[in-house]
Amino acid sequence: MNILLTSVGRRGYIVDYFKQASEDAKIHVCNSVFTVAFRKADFSFIAPKIYENDYIDCLVDYCKIHKIDAIMSLFDIDLVVLGSSEKRFEEIGVNLIHAPLKTLKICNDKWLTYKFSQEINIATPKTYISMEDALKEIESKRVYYPLIIKPRFGMGSIGLYTVNNREELHVLYNKCKNEVFNSYLKYESTDFKEESVLIQEFKKSKEYGLDIINDLNGKYVTVIPKEKVEMRSGETDLGLTVDNARFIDLAKKISQATKHKGIMSVDILADETGTLNLLEMNCRISGHYPVAHCAGVNYPKQLIEWLDKEDTNLENFKYKRDVYVTKELLPVVWE
Amino acid sequence: MNILLTSVGRRGYIVDYFKQASEDAKIHVCNSVFTVAFRKADFSFIAPKIYENDYIDCLVDYCKIHKIDAIMSLFDIDLVVLGSSEKRFEEIGVNLIHAPLKTLKICNDKWLTYKFSQEINIATPKTYISMEDALKEIESKRVYYPLIIKPRFGMGSIGLYTVNNREELHVLYNKCKNEVFNSYLKYESTDFKEESVLIQEFKKSKEYGLDIINDLNGKYVTVIPKEKVEMRSGETDLGLTVDNARFIDLAKKISQATKHKGIMSVDILADETGTLNLLEMNCRISGHYPVAHCAGVNYPKQLIEWLDKEDTNLENFKYKRDVYVTKELLPVVWE
Repeated sequence: MNILLTSVGRRGYIVDYFKQASEDAKIHVCNSVFTVAFRKADFSFIAPKIYENDYIDCLVDYCKIHKIDAIMSLFDIDLVVLGSSEKRFEEIGVNLIHAPLKTLKICNDKWLTYKFSQEINIATPKTYISMEDALKEIESKRVYYPLIIKPRFGMGSIGLYTVNNREELHVLYNKCKNEVFNSYLKYESTDFKEESVLIQEFKKSKEYGLDIINDLNGKYVTVIPKEKVEMRSGETDLGLTVDNARFIDLAKKISQATKHKGIMSVDILADETGTLNLLEMNCRISGHYPVAHCAGVNYPKQLIEWLDKEDTNLENFKYKRDVYVTKELLPVVWE
Repeated sequence: MNILLTSVGRRGYIVDYFKQASEDAKIHVCNSVFTVAFRKADFSFIAPKIYENDYIDCLVDYCKIHKIDAIMSLFDIDLVVLGSSEKRFEEIGVNLIHAPLKTLKICNDKWLTYKFSQEINIATPKTYISMEDALKEIESKRVYYPLIIKPRFGMGSIGLYTVNNREELHVLYNKCKNEVFNSYLKYESTDFKEESVLIQEFKKSKEYGLDIINDLNGKYVTVIPKEKVEMRSGETDLGLTVDNARFIDLAKKISQATKHKGIMSVDILADETGTLNLLEMNCRISGHYPVAHCAGVNYPKQLIEWLDKEDTNLENFKYKRDVYVTKELLPVVWE
């Protein structure tokens, strides 16, 4: 079996996990730049940038030549680019491990994510796409400072601000918009010039990362929740596996509405009352998956078994509770 | 020989480098929280937080009991705390591997760093400690937007903003000040309420990290420069060793003025004209040292030899040019 991981970035450990999961599966990776993952994979190549016209052509050719069975992307925008050409991959027998295009678009658009939460009746921080609406709500004391300013199509920390008063709200709203259109976020925001920035309620709370697992037919399997523990120094990334009982209802609702394949990574804020608020969804393995893996979960193994037409084996999702996992930095020469 | 590394954070690789450098040297580490470095070291212990009264007492006791020969800290504020008690360590024969207290204070205070650059006649971005001065200079067109707002005693990204116009300047200046006094930066800023925020010229430029090496008597040895290469995805940390010829004069000037022991890490901006501008100095091993180490430098080995009263061996500072080094993330369970 041949599996292609696209936009691998520096998550070389994902390649390790796949190689440890199966001796038969060959792991291919691609990116538009060299990455650590390149030398860990069985095969690797430089792909065109995902915005370039020949990106999909290049992948389709590669899949044909190397008999690729499945593609899994590790980057949100890439998911939508791939999903928009799903038929071309289906035609040559390649399984895209992600979600229906509608779901991918909801994941990438934080305004649609907010609407989605409301539609399926899941709590979510109050969110406004117009300054007018936000100001009205502030005046009538339905929402309070601090508020969060964030790009509607955002990633990383670009344009992300906390605002504490009206002056900061106005200035940073405009600054965020400028930053969106001066960064690679402009590609997705271009059709939404006046609706490219969100104003969102700030919830002081514990944050959890969930891996919501569906099988390759989009049917709910399980959920693995991890508390995102923050270290004093700001440098150490630390996660903790917790029991999944209180997350199952929420996970099932999301699973049934998204019909994704494999992992859906979901960020949850548990506010002071204990209510679980949906904050963000990504239809891919995210930075908190290793916490689950180190505690016993083996998603790569299950994915390979599914691709081999085997049934779900719940043993692959057994994990120890209360396991702390951190990420060490390992300098390596580029050769 | 016994070496104690304090405030190790997640830089476990530093412990590896020391252990690989000598079979005889025993490496001890401490922190106020558990870190990856703990299990790599020969001995490790939880120390009080560096602001607490019993921090130095605890270290002094530990050094006596475990016959520590030298202490090397990996955190800026810790350096000043240790340096303020240097005599207590001298009395028990412990060598603090850093710099005279005056130098440590210049390194931690970005306003003093600016003044220091001017005194020793090294280029540096224009910097203002009062809004009035900055506005005067903007009006008379001696400095232009964008400008950088940053805490005078800053670390990481707390309070760091780029501003593009007068409105942003005012709002983010105040926001930065609020953030300083709502974070752990308040400890050092408390005596400088009205002078806790800097306004600095923005230089679009290549950035370099230098390791300026002095011996344990504060005498200049060499300089190892690395270009800080930034990757497209924003995720990959990539450094590149470059030839040191153009950096030697600057490095000697800094070395002679600071009289530090061992490594002084210096951030340099080379502007469009090629001028080298001093941006920041830290009297410790920083995040770019591994680039030098992976290219052949062995500072831990030299440090151990110096502590053994051996002479400087320039072989320990030989390095290959044009070596790219990146940092891989390695998830590990906390046990």
